[in-house]
Amino acid sequence: MTDPLKSGATIGILGGGQLGRMLSVAAARLGYKTHIFEPGAAPPAAEVAHRLTTAAYDDVAALTAFADSVDVITYEFENIPTEALDLLEALRPIRPGRRALAISQDRIAEKDFLTGLGLSVAPYARVTTRADLDVALANIGTPAILKTTRLGYDGKGQARIMEAGDAAEALEAMNGAEAVLEGFIDFSHEVSVIAARGLDGSVAAYDPGENVHHAGILHSTTVPAKLSPNQRSDAVLIAARILNALDYVGVLGVELFVTPKGLIVNEIAPRVHNSGHWTQNGCAVDQFEQHIRAVAGLPLGDGSRFADVTMENLIGDDIARIPALLAERNTALHMYGKPEARRGRKMGHVNRITRGIA
Amino acid sequence: MTDPLKSGATIGILGGGQLGRMLSVAAARLGYKTHIFEPGAAPPAAEVAHRLTTAAYDDVAALTAFADSVDVITYEFENIPTEALDLLEALRPIRPGRRALAISQDRIAEKDFLTGLGLSVAPYARVTTRADLDVALANIGTPAILKTTRLGYDGKGQARIMEAGDAAEALEAMNGAEAVLEGFIDFSHEVSVIAARGLDGSVAAYDPGENVHHAGILHSTTVPAKLSPNQRSDAVLIAARILNALDYVGVLGVELFVTPKGLIVNEIAPRVHNSGHWTQNGCAVDQFEQHIRAVAGLPLGDGSRFADVTMENLIGDDIARIPALLAERNTALHMYGKPEARRGRKMGHVNRITRGIA
Repeated sequence: MTDPLKSGATIGILGGGQLGRMLSVAAARLGYKTHIFEPGAAPPAAEVAHRLTTAAYDDVAALTAFADSVDVITYEFENIPTEALDLLEALRPIRPGRRALAISQDRIAEKDFLTGLGLSVAPYARVTTRADLDVALANIGTPAILKTTRLGYDGKGQARIMEAGDAAEALEAMNGAEAVLEGFIDFSHEVSVIAARGLDGSVAAYDPGENVHHAGILHSTTVPAKLSPNQRSDAVLIAARILNALDYVGVLGVELFVTPKGLIVNEIAPRVHNSGHWTQNGCAVDQFEQHIRAVAGLPLGDGSRFADVTMENLIGDDIARIPALLAERNTALHMYGKPEARRGRKMGHVNRITRGIA
Repeated sequence: MTDPLKSGATIGILGGGQLGRMLSVAAARLGYKTHIFEPGAAPPAAEVAHRLTTAAYDDVAALTAFADSVDVITYEFENIPTEALDLLEALRPIRPGRRALAISQDRIAEKDFLTGLGLSVAPYARVTTRADLDVALANIGTPAILKTTRLGYDGKGQARIMEAGDAAEALEAMNGAEAVLEGFIDFSHEVSVIAARGLDGSVAAYDPGENVHHAGILHSTTVPAKLSPNQRSDAVLIAARILNALDYVGVLGVELFVTPKGLIVNEIAPRVHNSGHWTQNGCAVDQFEQHIRAVAGLPLGDGSRFADVTMENLIGDDIARIPALLAERNTALHMYGKPEARRGRKMGHVNRITRGIA
């Protein structure tokens, strides 16, 4: 299928969290229906989606019926089991494609891919045994961080090694999973580029945002980021190089460390990204619509920014601040409809428009 | 109920058209679910709502079950049968309240109410017989316009009387329904104010927009409107006077004619309004969220405008222009998910951001 998806067509979304929810709203805005596939109960996306399938990723009948009911498949998270993808891919196009998923599911594959493109990443080494770790620490030095190669996000499956003596405990925290040791980067701040590639190969990027993390979880993203004009165009060119190399279709998030020696890629996410939520209140076409446009084979939207924005995540008990946030001037609240505010759980976010610009 | 609606509560919406659809999305953004009540099949709002009841307005069992399933009731159109409202009102709060509905369902009641507030309206007279019409024409003169007092919108149930000889045909077009003759106003342009009143009595208004109609249907709304500072504050004060007099809760649309002698009220709509769609891309809190905030008992949002915007309706065959509109810079498309593009049918709209402002 290379023609644009017809109005009224259905986009299947794997995953029913907040990203799926905001993708569903964007799809509706473009005249499409969505069908959410999600193992968990009462997923946030279901409240604004046309249809929901509640089933596990190894339920062949449910996956088949899901694929049969949709015109194209996309996803809101990268850790989809390979067998499910094999089944779905035989029935409907999956966008972004398998290569982006394979790379982003494995930190080592990702870093090998990025360095293969000539991009800079933190020094890294594969670690499965204590001997591997000792060699890696000798080469990379401390401080360093040990991460499982798969299924890690928001600071989970990670252990810092401040000095050689921390090695044993860090390795234990990996629970026997394959890991990667990453050297620390001396960076001044982190930015991310949210970029998109259409079915026709065209590329568009939003202005990079500056990220602040608290306890390993994104706290806020601010546009404009502190970047020189050269750094800004470098950031966008890095994203474009990745998109083209992957023959990518959809929105991609690229996290970059800003260092005196240039930009270093931290990680990539083959999906809409928390650090791109500011686009909902700063651009005519937000990242969610941009992703749906790409997946549907529509022309990419103009990503021009017409406002300065700061996005702030509302995590766990932050929801107690909602009454005050509702009363704030030029602040847009985006809640995810999650029933329970657990510690570390992303409940919503706010976009504060700090300045309208020409 | 005067406490704010709790997160996860359900708002019942009477009517499943595009206004209900955009209200549902706004409710979700605030963490609420929606339940749509709509007699017609496949309503646009259902695709983004938590729940849909398909039933007629005289289906007592369906209305009762609907009311029982929701925490508060609002509506996207004013012509809800009185009996249905009587039943629902006994079970759940209806916001905005019955008085606003009664007034806006009857052009004469509306004009009597507005003149009672000291506001200017076009000269008008009640017409049921030919004798009434002759007296009215003698007093008001031509050109004039004859409208049914009830159930008229978008130019339906209206007949122009350019000279006395048109009277018979115009009266015939009323099909025996009670009508009102309105004198023509010599106005330079039409503006509308979208304003809101909270459960706590606070009032907020958006910057007035300037409307252009084609064939009796709204074509476009542009902010800022051509208004002097005095006219701008008059417009907002008129809306506030109406909201307070009705002890109103929710968003209200007020259409105003701009004349050399001041602002004249054309009509009011006790709901979100087509001429307020620009707020989706010009304000942090759009009219749909503002309405949900009011109905839910939350504080009203800040209606500050951070951009100049022109909203243009996409009607019938206008959907052929979608590929070109998708490629436009700084243009946001909002489709309603209607399967068939019939003549005169509102299929979607675009908001063009023409300038970001401080």
